[in-house]
Amino acid sequence: MINIKQALQHIIDHKTKPPGSLGQLEDIALQVGLIQNTVSPVIKNPSIIVFAGDHGIAATGLVNPYPQAVTAQMVLNFVAGGAAINVFCKQHGLHLSVVDAGVNFDFEPRLPIIHGKIAKGTANYLEQPAMTIAQCEEAISIGKLIVARMLNNDCNCIGFGEMGIGNTSSAALLMSAVMGKPIGFCAGRGTGVNDEQLQTKIETLKKVFDLRQLQTLANAPIQLLATVGGFEIAMMVGAFVAAAENNMIIVVDGFITTAALLIAQQLSPGILQYCIFAHQSNEQAHAAMLEHMEAKPLLQLGMRLGEGTGAALAMPLIQSAVNFLNQMASFESASVSNKEE
Amino acid sequence: MINIKQALQHIIDHKTKPPGSLGQLEDIALQVGLIQNTVSPVIKNPSIIVFAGDHGIAATGLVNPYPQAVTAQMVLNFVAGGAAINVFCKQHGLHLSVVDAGVNFDFEPRLPIIHGKIAKGTANYLEQPAMTIAQCEEAISIGKLIVARMLNNDCNCIGFGEMGIGNTSSAALLMSAVMGKPIGFCAGRGTGVNDEQLQTKIETLKKVFDLRQLQTLANAPIQLLATVGGFEIAMMVGAFVAAAENNMIIVVDGFITTAALLIAQQLSPGILQYCIFAHQSNEQAHAAMLEHMEAKPLLQLGMRLGEGTGAALAMPLIQSAVNFLNQMASFESASVSNKEE
Repeated sequence: MINIKQALQHIIDHKTKPPGSLGQLEDIALQVGLIQNTVSPVIKNPSIIVFAGDHGIAATGLVNPYPQAVTAQMVLNFVAGGAAINVFCKQHGLHLSVVDAGVNFDFEPRLPIIHGKIAKGTANYLEQPAMTIAQCEEAISIGKLIVARMLNNDCNCIGFGEMGIGNTSSAALLMSAVMGKPIGFCAGRGTGVNDEQLQTKIETLKKVFDLRQLQTLANAPIQLLATVGGFEIAMMVGAFVAAAENNMIIVVDGFITTAALLIAQQLSPGILQYCIFAHQSNEQAHAAMLEHMEAKPLLQLGMRLGEGTGAALAMPLIQSAVNFLNQMASFESASVSNKEE
Repeated sequence: MINIKQALQHIIDHKTKPPGSLGQLEDIALQVGLIQNTVSPVIKNPSIIVFAGDHGIAATGLVNPYPQAVTAQMVLNFVAGGAAINVFCKQHGLHLSVVDAGVNFDFEPRLPIIHGKIAKGTANYLEQPAMTIAQCEEAISIGKLIVARMLNNDCNCIGFGEMGIGNTSSAALLMSAVMGKPIGFCAGRGTGVNDEQLQTKIETLKKVFDLRQLQTLANAPIQLLATVGGFEIAMMVGAFVAAAENNMIIVVDGFITTAALLIAQQLSPGILQYCIFAHQSNEQAHAAMLEHMEAKPLLQLGMRLGEGTGAALAMPLIQSAVNFLNQMASFESASVSNKEE
């Protein structure tokens, strides 16, 4: 009986290079082969999905320097092709889908957006849970449907990104609850708060943590997500779970995307074998989350933008891993002497 | 009078993203703009040049686990399209030039190689200097001519790579002499020597260092290069100097390429402003050399292959930096609210 893992490793080790000398690309080649259960994997129609949603907390101005309106403005910027993620998707031939998961704005139906709005932003979790359990489950279901549609379009590799003013706060709360790390450690500068604003952000989130008794929700992913998550995060959780169920490659972007994966991992414990980590964000807590998942990101460019930009920039590296596996000569085929000779 | 640096920084800071949030890509965009002295830089016909050469020391078997014949075999593999660098160049539309700087093999003249052979390998520096001063100067001149030809072909961005069994030993000796670090620190596992082989390598190189009195050559770049360099390294030094003189982008690959740059820097003190560092190799001493140059490499994928593979993989990131600068919307053009509002 053929063991795919051994077969892949044999092929990788007999390419015309010293064993291991392509570093992480060798790990990725092996992983993609295992995901697709073949020694000749193919990346088909690689895509980026950006989930956008607004956060009730953002209207308070306690956690974010940009006004809430920026979420909708950036969605329109995605549609117009002017954002960083547009530039990188165009460069690499990646299909870009933008999802209105719950933006506080009425987008015209004719716009090329996936209209999955649950509500016009979450509730302010200082006052009440961010969403109802029903809303949370609906968001997860829509996330799954979006991935099913991608699969029907013959896509087998998705990079996930997000846009939502205030969503680093949700991510920090989710991380703090699941990983048991203090808020002061999990909350970072997001889009760029200054020292004073960071203090206010941390104090606000500490208050939320206690008020919503998040320490009791460490193992209750849906309830936790409903309490302090965002619609874009919940939809991404559903999308992650569906992508893994369908043996797709999941390319994980930055801090918020990784926080969503923490929740998805509770719903789908084997999910990490489908995940390739694109970029280690400048957000301080991201490194700790990645370590918690034993993840080695492909890039560390000091970015902190979201939108799936890290995932888009990592796509060519994933393609390079697949290409060397499929296209490089072996020592035998190229008549190159191996070390043992 | 317009200051290009300020103009570039203004444009970068007013793109629809938080300031600094594209991390190192912002540094690269600024650098490429400054190299080309424009706010709208363009990367034209990006290319990879792989310089190949043999090393007299390699025939002794004291420093390398692969036989010397592998250098020529790999050059033929480059010509046949089967090596890692071929795969990555094809993926990214990079022109690949392979230079015989001094391989111990008679290549057929009809092969698509730049035939720049100085000699069939350097002399064994345990017995005599690796090359004469005249050979070293000829190699540097040919390197300059090769870059001049690329410039005539409207190329303004070159990634430099190498192939040469035994050349991590030359690189370690050059580094040790220029930076004043002990051989034991500068010599690494190269293509993959084991513990015992590494000890033999280090002892051999220590002997060479003393025998050739390298401590006296720290500021005599040509003499140092002639004494323990390689033809591929010397040719690369000339190529670096010419690329900087012509305002081209120099993409620096791994350990050996960076060692060549240490020498080029002595000949052309302002050269670093033209250099983008592609990849931090797994070769232990590479990190120290990069730190010495205050260089932040774009990638750290744990590779140690050479051939310009790191440079080829970094090219899309350099293109992404140029693309965001040229293509992203500004806050004003996209009607997105900035933080100050």
